[in-house]
Parts: sequence; structure tokens; C-alpha cells
Amino acid sequence: MTPYKLLLLPGDGIGPEVMGQVEKVIGFLAQAGIATFETEHDLVGGSAIDAHGVPLTDAALARADAADAVLLGAVGGPKWADVAYEIRPEAGLLRLRKDLGLFANLRPAICYPALADASALKRELVEGLDIMIVRELTGGVYFGEPKEITTLPDGTKRAVDTQVYTTGEIERIAHVAFDLARKRSGRVASAEKHNVMKSGVLWKEVVTRVHAEYTDVALEHVLADNCAMQLVRRPKQYDVLVTDNLFGDVLSDVAAMLTGSLGMLPSASLGAVDAKGSRKALYEPVHGSAPDIAGRDFANPLAMIGSLAMALRYSFGLGEAANLLDGAITDALANGARTRDIAAEGTQALGTAGMGDAVVAAL
Amino acid sequence: MTPYKLLLLPGDGIGPEVMGQVEKVIGFLAQAGIATFETEHDLVGGSAIDAHGVPLTDAALARADAADAVLLGAVGGPKWADVAYEIRPEAGLLRLRKDLGLFANLRPAICYPALADASALKRELVEGLDIMIVRELTGGVYFGEPKEITTLPDGTKRAVDTQVYTTGEIERIAHVAFDLARKRSGRVASAEKHNVMKSGVLWKEVVTRVHAEYTDVALEHVLADNCAMQLVRRPKQYDVLVTDNLFGDVLSDVAAMLTGSLGMLPSASLGAVDAKGSRKALYEPVHGSAPDIAGRDFANPLAMIGSLAMALRYSFGLGEAANLLDGAITDALANGARTRDIAAEGTQALGTAGMGDAVVAAL
Ligand SMILES: CC(C)[C@H](C(=O)O)[C@@H](O)C(=O)O
Ligand SMILES: CC(C)[C@H](C(=O)O)[C@@H](O)C(=O)O
Repeated sequence: MTPYKLLLLPGDGIGPEVMGQVEKVIGFLAQAGIATFETEHDLVGGSAIDAHGVPLTDAALARADAADAVLLGAVGGPKWADVAYEIRPEAGLLRLRKDLGLFANLRPAICYPALADASALKRELVEGLDIMIVRELTGGVYFGEPKEITTLPDGTKRAVDTQVYTTGEIERIAHVAFDLARKRSGRVASAEKHNVMKSGVLWKEVVTRVHAEYTDVALEHVLADNCAMQLVRRPKQYDVLVTDNLFGDVLSDVAAMLTGSLGMLPSASLGAVDAKGSRKALYEPVHGSAPDIAGRDFANPLAMIGSLAMALRYSFGLGEAANLLDGAITDALANGARTRDIAAEGTQALGTAGMGDAVVAAL
Repeated sequence: MTPYKLLLLPGDGIGPEVMGQVEKVIGFLAQAGIATFETEHDLVGGSAIDAHGVPLTDAALARADAADAVLLGAVGGPKWADVAYEIRPEAGLLRLRKDLGLFANLRPAICYPALADASALKRELVEGLDIMIVRELTGGVYFGEPKEITTLPDGTKRAVDTQVYTTGEIERIAHVAFDLARKRSGRVASAEKHNVMKSGVLWKEVVTRVHAEYTDVALEHVLADNCAMQLVRRPKQYDVLVTDNLFGDVLSDVAAMLTGSLGMLPSASLGAVDAKGSRKALYEPVHGSAPDIAGRDFANPLAMIGSLAMALRYSFGLGEAANLLDGAITDALANGARTRDIAAEGTQALGTAGMGDAVVAAL
């Protein structure tokens, strides 16, 4: 069989460390005859700025475009705080999302039973939590024009960002949400601010219309501010939660934090399915580059390894291998493997590499 | 002494019920010789739509402008879901904020000791919580133009909202935050998305510059998504939190929910101080119109009564009377008075009027 083409973009901060553990797992999968990957490496974010002066080179983008899937660690850090806006580390990630057309960002917020006590919320509120946030990723205020700072005649400044959504953009993300809900609990909540934003009015209208094609799925509309509140109050009321780019950024972080295991949550960013049935895809942890703990063997690699599992499932149709890998993560945890972020106070924790080994051992 | 002029806008849903309890308190304050108010009433939101076809009449706006302070209950409800965007209930509230120049929205998130167990968070994370959210209220995506939905040649639609911030708008809200911090713990956190939004870039730049005038106050910049996360993870790290209109909408709801006492949280919306040393002001509960429980004597009136306390403090310089009223709320709670939203499961709860009586009794 032809090997799957994977581009690895470790990025900044703890990115390279957690990516190292994914490479360990990839090595094992090949050895065990489960799946063979042809891996390439490139730079993104601050590391690309340091090497090339830009956070993503055209060559790296072309490689990402040619790969079957991209795995990304994390970008950014204080080192690049003074870089110009156009070439800041995050611009590399945003360019990947936009230019590869990765409009559908899937962010599962799962509370692992072994970790329910690590949540800030009371155990009974999060035990068994399993939310899938579907965030629109290539539209909204992230990319709308004008996006600029101008200087006024009196020398003061005026900054503008523009949130734009079209019917088509909303339709396709709504379909992703409803299709997912069919395979899950059959419930979708859609969050916007139609009481303040015209894009919220259109969002609600289009989601309602698309819903007519999914009579077997229940749809609830919720205002984004209330949704943030409800996520804290009674998170298990949600199953699939679809929302725009900016609200998705905030709400998915709230949902992730509820689980008490931020270091464990993967994400998938998917493009449209093409004529050949394949789609562009990028997989990355929900957590950031965590510069404060970078290089210290403290980082939890499970979100990155879980992102590989999502790639197996969504990009390569290797559902069984994905289950195997997810199972190995669960087993490693059940065997007591803990990195610092999820270890109970006063207990001994594994390092990044130690956790990677624990997963491979469980495989 | 000349009586203070108060405009009461009960609004929709539970608004009139909770406002009724404020009138009880006002009656008591007059009788006891503590403060005398000349109260007027008018309509806002759905009730104004029903009576006048618009969510705020010019006459009501003029009254609000002439009053020393405005107390507002809540606006909106499913009854007005199909009203045109321009005259929806919320437009009345937004017009009041904008036309009275109420740019500074203060939202305290306080965890009352008696209610710490009502929080979704573990007790130790919220006990003693006392955050002051300072939300910019007359700028950003709420009011920026263009704000419109257009129909494209192919019949599909395109919605646009515009986030605009100027140096001056950011400066004045930053001053409010730093001045408040001086009277509190001396710490300000400022939340934006400078890694994605140009308005975030300007926000961070201006807040940093204003901070130079407050060398006794510590300033921390935090990304809004991370801030939402940190509010759940370790809320007590924050004291004063300043942010823009949209992030403030979401973050203040998260912060409010943490306290477990959403029905208890008041807010103040303040204008600039004029030459005579006075400022326009509107006071309202953080909670909404809760149409599901309207008219059933279930609603908690303490947020509305607490809003009157804020008015005593910020609009009338009656700090002592404000303390008295806040103390009566605390005492009523300590005496076991609970409405349904904050009562322990299986215990007897007071109605809206009963809670109002409990506060007056404690006065
Ligand atoms: C790094 C940043 C640009 C990014 C975003 O805002 O989308 C991050 O917060 C995320 O959620 O993936
Ligand atoms: C009712 C609505 C327009 C309002 C807002 O979005 O500002 C509300 O959510 C609030 O926070 O006061």
C-alpha cells in the first residue's frame, strides 16, 4: 500500500516536544504493520520567522497542500511579541487555515473519567461530558476586510475589524454540524448574537433553513453570551455546538477547560470533500505553545497524539487504528500515567517523553 | 433636600416584578428619612413595542436624559422574536446606552459566602471571589457601521458587522478600570485578541500607554479566549478586568455564572463626568428577562435591589445608604432568605415579593 503523506509542523514552544511523541507513535504504527506514513517536516510560526522572516513560507504551504494531512504543534510566544502584525507567528496558522480552505474546526471537549476531579467544576457536572464544538474557521472577523488601523487628522487612531458571513459559508458549516449530530445524540445547539449582530441574524436564518433537511435532528438556538454561561452551569445539556469563528474561539476554550484536561484535547480542521472524496485537513491540539514550560519535558503530549488519532479517523479512514490509539490513551491514563497538568497534587508525574512511552506501551 | 430624580424602566418578563421590589425599598428609604426619590415610570423593550410600536420612544429617552439615574429591569422575550431588527426589544436598551453615552459598564461578580455552594465550581475556587468587570459599552461591533445584510446577484446573502475602536474610546474606559483598581487590589487585566484583531492591537497599545499614568497599578494583558478559560480555571486571579463590548458581554456572563448567584448581580452603566461633576447612569441586573418564569413570583429581586444600591453609591454619593442596603441583602441571605434560583435542593424558597420583604425587614 502507498504510504499516507503527513506533513509535521511542530511550531513553537512545547510544539516540538509533543510532536516528538507523535513521531514515536508513528514509528510504532509502521513497525506493527498498522499504517505507514511518509512524513515531511517544515516550520510554522515563530520558528519559521526566525529561519525565513515569515511565519509560513510558500514552500511550506505548498507542502501542506500536497500532503494527505497536516499535524501542527502550536505557534507563538513572547519572543515574537514585537514582530509586525502581518508576519506574527499566528499569521502562519491563519494562512494555513484560509489557504487550505479548512472551514470546519471540530473540537471535542471530553471529560476523561480518570480526570473528572481535575475539573474546576463539580464532578457530577462534568463526569461523562462529551461535547463536539463545530467552529467555522475561515470566515467572520478573522478574515473580513477592512481590517486596519488608520491615523486620524488629530493624530489619534481608529481600528477596524470586519465580520462577514455569507449564506454559503453558514450552510456548509451547518451541514457539518447536523451530519455529526446524526452520528451522535441527534442534538445541535447553534450560538450567535442575532440580537446585536446582523451576521447573527443571517446565521440563525440559514441554520434554521438547513435544519429543515435534518428532521431527525433537534436544533436549539442560543445567544453566545448565554451559551458561555450555560457551558459553566450545566455543560452536559450540549452535544454538538455550532458557532462562528470568534465565538467558537472563546466557547471552545471554555468547553475545553471544563474537562479539566486541556492538555488532552485534540482538534481537526477540515476542508470541503472534493470530487475524489478526499479533503484537506489539519490536526492540532487545542492547547497553545505554553512558552513557560517549553523545553522542560513537562508538556502533556496526549492532545497531540489524540490529534494523530483524529487524522487516522477523518483523513485516512483508519477508524480501527484510531480506536486502537484512543484506547491506548485511555489505558495509559487508567494505568495511572499522568503528566504534571493532570497529576493529583503531591503525586509523581511523568515527563512528556515518559507519557509518550506509556501510550506506546499501551498500544 | 431636593429629591433625586429616578426613572424606572421595568421592561419585559420578570422586569416589572423585580422592579416592584425596588419600589418597596425606595418607599422604605423615604419613610426612614434616608433618601427621597422622585420616581417616574416609562416603557422599554417589548412592552414599549406593544404600546408604541418602538422599543424606546423619544419621550422616554428624553426622560432618561433628564433623570439623575435610570433603573432598568430587563428587555426581550420570545413574544417579540419576529419583530424587525431595527425595532426589536434590545434596540431600546442599546439606544439608551448609546444616546446617553454610557460607555462604562461595571459588572461586579461577587460570590456571596452563603451561596458558594450554588456555584458550578468547587467551593475553594469561588469562595471570596470579587471581580469587577469593566466592559466598554458604546463602541465595538455593537455600533460600528456598516452593519447590514445585502443580497448578492445569485440571491444568496452577505451579512456584515463592523468592530470599530478609536484611541479616545479605549483611553476613557482604561481610565475607569485603573481608577477602580486603585480603590481595590491595584490589579487590572485587559482582555483582547491582538493576535487576530486590529482593534485588539490598538486596544493593547492604548491600555499600555494609559497604564503609564498608574505606576501603582499592575497591568496584565490576556487574550480573550485564554481569559475565558482562566475565569473557569482560577477565577480569583482576577480583580479588575477591562475589555471591549463583545468580549465583555461573554466574559461578564461567564464571571457572573461562576458566582452561582446570577440572580444577585447588579450592574452600572456610566457616562462621562460633566462640568458639574455629575454623570448619566443606568443601573440594571446582569440577568435577563427570564420569560419562562415571568409572572410567577419566582424571580430573585436581589440583582435589581443591588442595582439600586449601586445607584446610591455611584449616582447620588450616598455611600452609607448603599452600604446599608448591601448589608440588608447580606443579612437577609444570612437569615436564610432564598429565592428558588439560590435555594438548596428540596428546601423551601421565598417568592419575589417575599425576598423584597426580607430585605426591607433587614433594613
Ligand atoms: C492562535 C490563534 C490565532 C488561534 C485562534 O484565535 O483561532 C487559537 O486561539 C485557536 O483557537 O486556535
Ligand atoms: C440584551 C443584549 C442586547 C445585551 C448585550 O448584548 O449587551 C445583554 O446581553 C447584556 O449583556 O446586557
